[in-house]
Amino acid sequence: MIVNPNTTASMTRTVLAGAEAVAGPSTRLVGSTAARGVESVESNTDEVWGALAVLEQVRTGETTGVDGYVIACFGDTGLPAAKETARGPVVGMTEAALFTAALLAARFSVVTLPPRTREQSHRVLRETGLAHRATVRAIEEPVAEVHGGSLHLLDAVAGEAAAALAADGAEAIVLGCAGLADLVGPLTERLGVPVVEGVAAAVTLVEGLLAQRLSTSRVATYAPPERLGPVPA
Amino acid sequence: MIVNPNTTASMTRTVLAGAEAVAGPSTRLVGSTAARGVESVESNTDEVWGALAVLEQVRTGETTGVDGYVIACFGDTGLPAAKETARGPVVGMTEAALFTAALLAARFSVVTLPPRTREQSHRVLRETGLAHRATVRAIEEPVAEVHGGSLHLLDAVAGEAAAALAADGAEAIVLGCAGLADLVGPLTERLGVPVVEGVAAAVTLVEGLLAQRLSTSRVATYAPPERLGPVPA
Amino acid sequence: MIVNPNTTASMTRTVLAGAEAVAGPSTRLVGSTAARGVESVESNTDEVWGALAVLEQVRTGETTGVDGYVIACFGDTGLPAAKETARGPVVGMTEAALFTAALLAARFSVVTLPPRTREQSHRVLRETGLAHRATVRAIEEPVAEVHGGSLHLLDAVAGEAAAALAADGAEAIVLGCAGLADLVGPLTERLGVPVVEGVAAAVTLVEGLLAQRLSTSRVATYAPPERLGPVPA
Amino acid sequence: MIVNPNTTASMTRTVLAGAEAVAGPSTRLVGSTAARGVESVESNTDEVWGALAVLEQVRTGETTGVDGYVIACFGDTGLPAAKETARGPVVGMTEAALFTAALLAARFSVVTLPPRTREQSHRVLRETGLAHRATVRAIEEPVAEVHGGSLHLLDAVAGEAAAALAADGAEAIVLGCAGLADLVGPLTERLGVPVVEGVAAAVTLVEGLLAQRLSTSRVATYAPPERLGPVPA
Amino acid sequence: MIVNPNTTASMTRTVLAGAEAVAGPSTRLVGSTAARGVESVESNTDEVWGALAVLEQVRTGETTGVDGYVIACFGDTGLPAAKETARGPVVGMTEAALFTAALLAARFSVVTLPPRTREQSHRVLRETGLAHRATVRAIEEPVAEVHGGSLHLLDAVAGEAAAALAADGAEAIVLGCAGLADLVGPLTERLGVPVVEGVAAAVTLVEGLLAQRLSTSRVATYAPPERLGPVPA
Amino acid sequence: MIVNPNTTASMTRTVLAGAEAVAGPSTRLVGSTAARGVESVESNTDEVWGALAVLEQVRTGETTGVDGYVIACFGDTGLPAAKETARGPVVGMTEAALFTAALLAARFSVVTLPPRTREQSHRVLRETGLAHRATVRAIEEPVAEVHGGSLHLLDAVAGEAAAALAADGAEAIVLGCAGLADLVGPLTERLGVPVVEGVAAAVTLVEGLLAQRLSTSRVATYAPPERLGPVPA
Repeated sequence: MIVNPNTTASMTRTVLAGAEAVAGPSTRLVGSTAARGVESVESNTDEVWGALAVLEQVRTGETTGVDGYVIACFGDTGLPAAKETARGPVVGMTEAALFTAALLAARFSVVTLPPRTREQSHRVLRETGLAHRATVRAIEEPVAEVHGGSLHLLDAVAGEAAAALAADGAEAIVLGCAGLADLVGPLTERLGVPVVEGVAAAVTLVEGLLAQRLSTSRVATYAPPERLGPVPA
Repeated sequence: MIVNPNTTASMTRTVLAGAEAVAGPSTRLVGSTAARGVESVESNTDEVWGALAVLEQVRTGETTGVDGYVIACFGDTGLPAAKETARGPVVGMTEAALFTAALLAARFSVVTLPPRTREQSHRVLRETGLAHRATVRAIEEPVAEVHGGSLHLLDAVAGEAAAALAADGAEAIVLGCAGLADLVGPLTERLGVPVVEGVAAAVTLVEGLLAQRLSTSRVATYAPPERLGPVPA
Repeated sequence: MIVNPNTTASMTRTVLAGAEAVAGPSTRLVGSTAARGVESVESNTDEVWGALAVLEQVRTGETTGVDGYVIACFGDTGLPAAKETARGPVVGMTEAALFTAALLAARFSVVTLPPRTREQSHRVLRETGLAHRATVRAIEEPVAEVHGGSLHLLDAVAGEAAAALAADGAEAIVLGCAGLADLVGPLTERLGVPVVEGVAAAVTLVEGLLAQRLSTSRVATYAPPERLGPVPA
Repeated sequence: MIVNPNTTASMTRTVLAGAEAVAGPSTRLVGSTAARGVESVESNTDEVWGALAVLEQVRTGETTGVDGYVIACFGDTGLPAAKETARGPVVGMTEAALFTAALLAARFSVVTLPPRTREQSHRVLRETGLAHRATVRAIEEPVAEVHGGSLHLLDAVAGEAAAALAADGAEAIVLGCAGLADLVGPLTERLGVPVVEGVAAAVTLVEGLLAQRLSTSRVATYAPPERLGPVPA
Repeated sequence: MIVNPNTTASMTRTVLAGAEAVAGPSTRLVGSTAARGVESVESNTDEVWGALAVLEQVRTGETTGVDGYVIACFGDTGLPAAKETARGPVVGMTEAALFTAALLAARFSVVTLPPRTREQSHRVLRETGLAHRATVRAIEEPVAEVHGGSLHLLDAVAGEAAAALAADGAEAIVLGCAGLADLVGPLTERLGVPVVEGVAAAVTLVEGLLAQRLSTSRVATYAPPERLGPVPA
Repeated sequence: MIVNPNTTASMTRTVLAGAEAVAGPSTRLVGSTAARGVESVESNTDEVWGALAVLEQVRTGETTGVDGYVIACFGDTGLPAAKETARGPVVGMTEAALFTAALLAARFSVVTLPPRTREQSHRVLRETGLAHRATVRAIEEPVAEVHGGSLHLLDAVAGEAAAALAADGAEAIVLGCAGLADLVGPLTERLGVPVVEGVAAAVTLVEGLLAQRLSTSRVATYAPPERLGPVPA
């Protein structure tokens, strides 16, 4: 299940299409949209609602036989709660993108949007430990404009990415937002370096974990919770 | 306002009493309890509900003239959203406790509960940068049992704290849970080192920020959010 | 007691005035000036003399009933010795400023002077662990010129601060020198972000520690010293 | 291609069997054994020979249409040279195991062998940035004994792993040697936490990179080399 | 010049004898003892006096043609001021010992005394960046007892060192106090690992810097100070 | 023995001449050139061959009575294997240069060549822990052009070094390649800061270790290897 923490169904469709382009033949992907919350996740307040939406969607997924989950929001909102809720593996698009970029390049840069969300990227870099190999840059565009395709952002993202290659020593680019899959091709061509899209990366990681029969450790941090909260599961 | 992210009003009263013991004469403290959510915060799932409750309480506080906020939950759930919502300063009890301990001791140890929440302490240690000066230990007690006083935990906490002093080089102890203010006195006496209670620490920090006429920076990470979410503010 | 490690009494008066603007009504502040040493602290050599002056002033303070101390010199010279000498809490203006800025902003920048003292800021950033959230910038002005007010530095500090906001991702500014309290107002207005003055921050932190009945841990690093040195206490 | 840096063909067969258990239906795996060098990699000297063997095998692979490579040696000897030699993606079993464990657990422990190779694990932990989430433990067994199966190591590995869970806060275990795939099942059952085998992890990562059409960045660190060395390619 | 920051001339003689055992034939060593201050350096207060004594001795050395300096006190008290005062190179015994140990071993442990001074070692580890490769242990002995030889400490130091080898992964030992040169031989024999004595290490480093015609950078942090302080130079 | 990992004998002669300028009167230096491998070390592939050449040369040195070794290649290729092979001390020019610069300056910059090798410098910075005090810059020149002297690089290196002083806060420069000893004089004059050449630094460090009768710890990481590989020793 591709979990979209916001309420914009067109974003879910866009993201799902990108995911399907990399998924294996035996993988069946399901897109899921937040039933309530915010139309895009661009602030700490949005992340609170996004986390609740992730939790509710994963809880639903557990009742419908979902094997694994991808959290399709840069910043991985709700990821810890999802990991402790699901029986199967859960991968955030941000952690997926960072680990993938680290396999491909000595150093890389995240290009995210809008600037106020840079700290979300830094937070995941701290958790993954990759801060010494990455910089974070941002373009001045609201996420909400991305839902129907992102080619209008190509010049802005390419400009910031080129600056990262020239000034930061970056050798690959991570797209810092869900819904930018259509940028991967043109950006790769323009920049000549790997361009990592986190949802695609996360889909292949979940597939890999399932192939290894691995799931989240349940002994402490992600043990099943004592209580579910006020919403019936 | 002392913001209790859980729904247990007796916990709010206990925490408020501890806060009042340190507040200045011109400070008027208000306790606030989550209107919905979970009865205690002990898991990542609980934190999702706790963050929502923090957000809703701060939003209410903004309509009732609150000058500053303390988030009374170890792990500082909901803190980023609270910082971007409130006009005045917001301090989490965890960041408050860590900075306070760092003023008093070269190294210190957090004694938290239950063990599954250790990672919440590590997360705030990473954000504050104090991981090189602290260890995290835990006792096997549920938070839910704390609401009516915590003296029954004295031996367990003192044992773990003494181990930290002996084995970790700790020179002060941070209590890793709200509602443990009644442990400060007996533990200090037994251990002979400073014992830091985060809500008390946070109350004095908010008072200090107000005296300096300082509040959260609003230019990027904590700028006012674009939207409030589905609940009327 | 506001401890000025240098011998310039006019600097002590300036700093004391800034401190009084934030101190609580029941706090009585005393300014203290070095009896011997250097007229300002701008080098490692100056810091040796400054540390000695801090030690001697705190020792005097202990005989006159001082409850707590603020070290009013960016770099916190003499702070460890002061912590082990005083019965009550001691806070350096640098650690105070850094922790305060960390409560207000995801990232911030120190603007200090002159450039040769940048390493003093980096040293405290390492000790506090906040290096990952801060940059250090400097203007080309000697500290010695600051004693009678610092408004002549406004343009230089504002310029460097604005560069930090634009290029370093800073969201708040720390003033990297004692005696700059009169810059807080005009800088805040010009920059639109919190401007933290360390002596003011430290005064409120000492007040807060006293309210919590907390003082320095005496079990190891800051245990009372075996000997006082050649000067009669 | 599963690249075995040592000359022990039975080890290659064992490792290949483990890899095939997780590979997708459209993946064709080829095992490759060092034509010259050492019979197992347990020292820095062995790593020199191992790296040469990796380089030579990847060079051969490039002439036979290999799409991607897994370096099957804990410590990832030869990995940087392999990344700059191959057109397709190359993943080391160590980086694969560490990133995979980081997706599953807040903290984990590597159990490697023999003790003299612990530093190899620390080196990859430093490169991946995961040192803050992992410990390294070792058992006193030579790698050379592993080639025909590793069930005789079960008690020793399980003992060290259990110690990691109890004392280090580990919530998952990484097997620190190639050829231990037959331990995954019994260890998982005994420990109740995820047990990560790096070759399996690396196979799925290479599959995932190929699905995303991603390969190593060629702009600087891993650009094609100027020269190939004295051996004809 | 071997600069002893304390006033105990017998300590200077002991340290000088150890230094002479490693100095080259063309090196002429001069021992120098603090004219005022404290009889040993075991606290932060002692360090203030030690730093002043270092500064005064280096200033004297500059008038008597000294080519280079070794600061013979674990913790390197006064080192920054000495570096900016001397024309020639200055090396602290602590930084010397840590860099030397790092050349010899992947990981090592400092065995210092008494326990209250551990933080001095941690401070230099932070500055040198070697914290990830070292632990700090301490024995319960006052420094003041060391001046006439240290063989009475052999069992205590050997015990703590052996614990470091067994439990911390240390592969070499750094002696964390001046005046322990007579322990090097017996400890090396007993432990079977390199034992680094910082004064000896620093002497050879100063010789090496002189051979390379290198001295402290004077452009910023260690530029000549503006003023010398109240004592005539 | 000065170990040149590449096959270019003129480079060995150049490096040896630089080393002799700093060696003590009782030191007899021997230059050694790779018998096989690559003509210069500029890529990860080159490093594999360089490491093999280092190993073979040290093995030869052990049969001819060599007391200590300097690895004369920036990046210290083959250093771990050399440390476990030699009875006497082995120092890499990179670790030597970094530790030496750290004795002279608060912050410094490495100027290396060509840009693709920057990561080699970063790797040693990570191992030595000095990343927080250094930046890495590169000029666009192949190493292969350096063998007969490097004065043609003066302007390029000086330009990058000057940028490091101005923009990175560097106060000393490390030359990031063997064979640049003839740049030390003119660069020092032009820049006014210490310029560290790693081979010279390493020679004095090996002399110092020998004077202290210290060599590599043999208990774990650098214990003698089990086997030598396919080449007769």
